[in-house]
Amino acid sequence: MIGSVLAPASPGEMLRLVRTGRAVTRTQLVTATGLSRSTVMHRVGALLSAGLLVEGARPDGSGGGRPPATLALNAGLGVVLAADLGAQHGRLAVCDLEGEALAEREEPIHIADGPDAVLDWVGRTFDALLAEAGRHDADVLAVGIDVPGPVDVERGRPVSPPIMPGWDDHPVADRLAERYPGALVRLERDVQAMALAEHRRHHSLLRDMVFVKVATGIGAGIIADGEVLQGSHGRAGDIGHIRSIEPSEVLCSCGNHGCVAALASGSALVRRLKEAGYAVESSLDVVELVKAGDAVATHHVRDAGRLLGAALAALVSVVAPSLVVVGGDLADASEPLLAGIRESVYERCSPRSTQELRILSSRLRERAGVVGAATLALEHMLAPAAVDARLARRGVAA
Amino acid sequence: MIGSVLAPASPGEMLRLVRTGRAVTRTQLVTATGLSRSTVMHRVGALLSAGLLVEGARPDGSGGGRPPATLALNAGLGVVLAADLGAQHGRLAVCDLEGEALAEREEPIHIADGPDAVLDWVGRTFDALLAEAGRHDADVLAVGIDVPGPVDVERGRPVSPPIMPGWDDHPVADRLAERYPGALVRLERDVQAMALAEHRRHHSLLRDMVFVKVATGIGAGIIADGEVLQGSHGRAGDIGHIRSIEPSEVLCSCGNHGCVAALASGSALVRRLKEAGYAVESSLDVVELVKAGDAVATHHVRDAGRLLGAALAALVSVVAPSLVVVGGDLADASEPLLAGIRESVYERCSPRSTQELRILSSRLRERAGVVGAATLALEHMLAPAAVDARLARRGVAA
Repeated sequence: MIGSVLAPASPGEMLRLVRTGRAVTRTQLVTATGLSRSTVMHRVGALLSAGLLVEGARPDGSGGGRPPATLALNAGLGVVLAADLGAQHGRLAVCDLEGEALAEREEPIHIADGPDAVLDWVGRTFDALLAEAGRHDADVLAVGIDVPGPVDVERGRPVSPPIMPGWDDHPVADRLAERYPGALVRLERDVQAMALAEHRRHHSLLRDMVFVKVATGIGAGIIADGEVLQGSHGRAGDIGHIRSIEPSEVLCSCGNHGCVAALASGSALVRRLKEAGYAVESSLDVVELVKAGDAVATHHVRDAGRLLGAALAALVSVVAPSLVVVGGDLADASEPLLAGIRESVYERCSPRSTQELRILSSRLRERAGVVGAATLALEHMLAPAAVDARLARRGVAA
Repeated sequence: MIGSVLAPASPGEMLRLVRTGRAVTRTQLVTATGLSRSTVMHRVGALLSAGLLVEGARPDGSGGGRPPATLALNAGLGVVLAADLGAQHGRLAVCDLEGEALAEREEPIHIADGPDAVLDWVGRTFDALLAEAGRHDADVLAVGIDVPGPVDVERGRPVSPPIMPGWDDHPVADRLAERYPGALVRLERDVQAMALAEHRRHHSLLRDMVFVKVATGIGAGIIADGEVLQGSHGRAGDIGHIRSIEPSEVLCSCGNHGCVAALASGSALVRRLKEAGYAVESSLDVVELVKAGDAVATHHVRDAGRLLGAALAALVSVVAPSLVVVGGDLADASEPLLAGIRESVYERCSPRSTQELRILSSRLRERAGVVGAATLALEHMLAPAAVDARLARRGVAA
C-alpha cells in the first residue's frame, strides 16, 4: 500500500525505474509501483509499442517455469546529437540513448566568428557524423549543445556571453529545433554540462560537487542535491570575477581589475609567460612547457592555482561540496595546478568544511563537455513527464 | 490527456493543488489532474475523512444550479510547534496548519548551557504555549526547530556546531519525537529556516535568493530553485570563514585568522567598540548606539558591512541570487550595515551579476527563525508523499 502511494507511476516513471535498473521485469514493476498487474502490463505494452522499451534476454530461471523477460531502454530507437562549443575548439558527437558515442569529431573553431559561421559548421559536422554512424535526420530525438557563456536555459539563448561576440540572445535552440523537427533541444553553459557529465559518469553517488573549468576563461558548474544549480539567468558558478587575493592592476573584460579570471586563467598564463620572454600563444603551449619540465611555467601555473584556490575556498564555504573536479585545457598541467589549488583551499577553509573534501582532476578530460551535452539532452528527453507527453501525442492513455 | 499524464495526482498531490489555490473545487481537480470524476470524488472523500481537507463556503453561483463547494486545507486539524534557538535567545510558537501563530514567546537563553538545559526549557515553554492556545500534546502534528549551527537534517542532529558546546551529535529530533509521539520533527540550521521563511512569506516568486544573518556569528541560508540548498552535511552558506579582504591577525574560533566572522560579526563589533572605549556587551548595545546616532559605532558597523559585502560578492558570483536579504540582530542597524554591504557587492561583482540584484533588510526580522521553523515542519508534513503515507497508515487506498 505504501509502495503504491509513494510511487504513483506513470509510464514515464516506469521507464525511469527500468532505465535505472531499479525494476527490470513486469513483476518487479508491480512490486515497485504497487500498481495492479494489468495496469503494469498495459503501460509496459505502450512503452514497447512506442519503441522506448525492448524485451531483453530471459535470465536463467532458478525455479521451475519460464523465467521472466527483462526489460531495457531501447538505446537504438534513435540518436542524440551533442555539441560542445569552446572558445577555440568544438567537439561534436552522435550518441545512442545510453549516451555512448557512435561517431565523434573535434575541430578547431572560433566562437568569436559568431553564430552563423559556427552553427553552419555544427550543422555540416552533424550531417557528416550521422552519415558515419549510418543514421538520418529523422533518427534525431534530442540535441544537447553547450557554449562557453551564460545561457537562458528556458529560452535556449546565450545571455550577454563575454567571450562570444554576436551570440547575445541568439535563438540557438530554436535554430537547431527547426533543423531537426520533433527533436528536443537543450542549450546549457559549458561548465554546467561538464559538471553533469562528471557527476553522472563517475560520481553519481555524491549529492554535492563542483566542476571547475580552467581554460581561456574560468568558470564552475555546481551540482547541488544531484542536479545542476542554475542561479538567476543561469549564472551560478560564474566565479571568474571573484576578486583575487593579491592586489593587482590587471584589467578584466568585465571592467574591474584583479578578477581571478584576469590572473589565473589560460589567457592570464599566456600573458604572464609572454612577459617572461616565452613564445606562447595558447593554454596548450603553457601545458606543453609544464610537461617538458620548464620551471618558470610550472611556477606560474602553480601560482595561478593558488590564486584560483582562494576563490574556490569561498565557493567551498558557500555551497559545501564534497568534491571539486578540475577540468579544462589547463587541467592537463594538473600537478602544479592542483597543488596550488589544494594549498589555498586547505589553508583558507575552516577545518570542518574540508574534512571530507576531495580535489581531483577531471576524468572525462576533453570529452567532459560533449558527454555533458549528450547527458542533458537525454535526461530532458527521458524525463518521466516528457515520456508521458510523447506517449500522449501518440494517443496512448496513461 | 496531457493533463492526466503530467499530473499523476495522488491524494497528497491533490491536497497540494488545493493548498496552493491551483484547484479548489472537485471540478477544478478533475481538470487539473485529468483523473476521472469518480477517482477525484473518492480521493477528496479520503482527504475529508482524514480531516486534512474541509469544505468551505459555496461561492455565489452566477449560472443556474448549486454552485460547487470550495475545498480548503483544514488549518485547525492540529498544530505545529516551532522553536528558533539562537545563541542568546529563543523564540517558540504554537502555529496552525497555515503557519499562523496561535501563541508565541521569546526569552533569553544560553545555547552554551547545553541540550539538556535548553531542551527542558523548550519543553516547558511548549507546554505553556499549548495551554495558552487551548491545545494539547495530542494535537501536535509536527515540530520544527532551528539552531545556530550545522545540522545533519536526515538524522536530526547538530554536527560540530562551533558556538553550541555539548550539542554535537545530540539526538535533538529524536528527543522531540519521543515527547510528541506521531509528530513529524524537523531540525534545521537557523539561517536555512530563516531563508525559507523570507522566501515563502515575501519572495515566493523568486527562484534564487540568499538570507544573510548578522548576529553573534555570520551565516547564510541559500534558496536555489525555490528550495533550501543543504550542501554536504548541511554546511552550505557557512560564509563566516571566508577570508576577509583586509589582512588581519584577529583569530577566529576556527583556528584561522582574518575570517569575516572574526571581523564583521556582532561579537567582532562588540570587541571593536570595547577597544574604542565603549561599554558594550552585545550586538543589541551596538544597535542602540547606531540608533542613537553615535558616529564611531556607525562607522564600525558600516565598515563591518563593507568586509561582509566582500564575502557576499563571492557568494553572489557563486550562486547568482536575484535577492540578498539581510537579517539577524545587527540588521536592526540596517542603514550603515546595508550601505557597507552594497558598496562592496556592487563594486566587486561583475555588472552582469548585479544588474537585477536587490539587497534588502529582512521583513520578518526577529520572527524569521520561528516562522521558518514552522514552515519547514509544515512543508515536510504536507508534502504529497507524507500525506499519502499518512492516508495509507489509516488504510485509505490511493
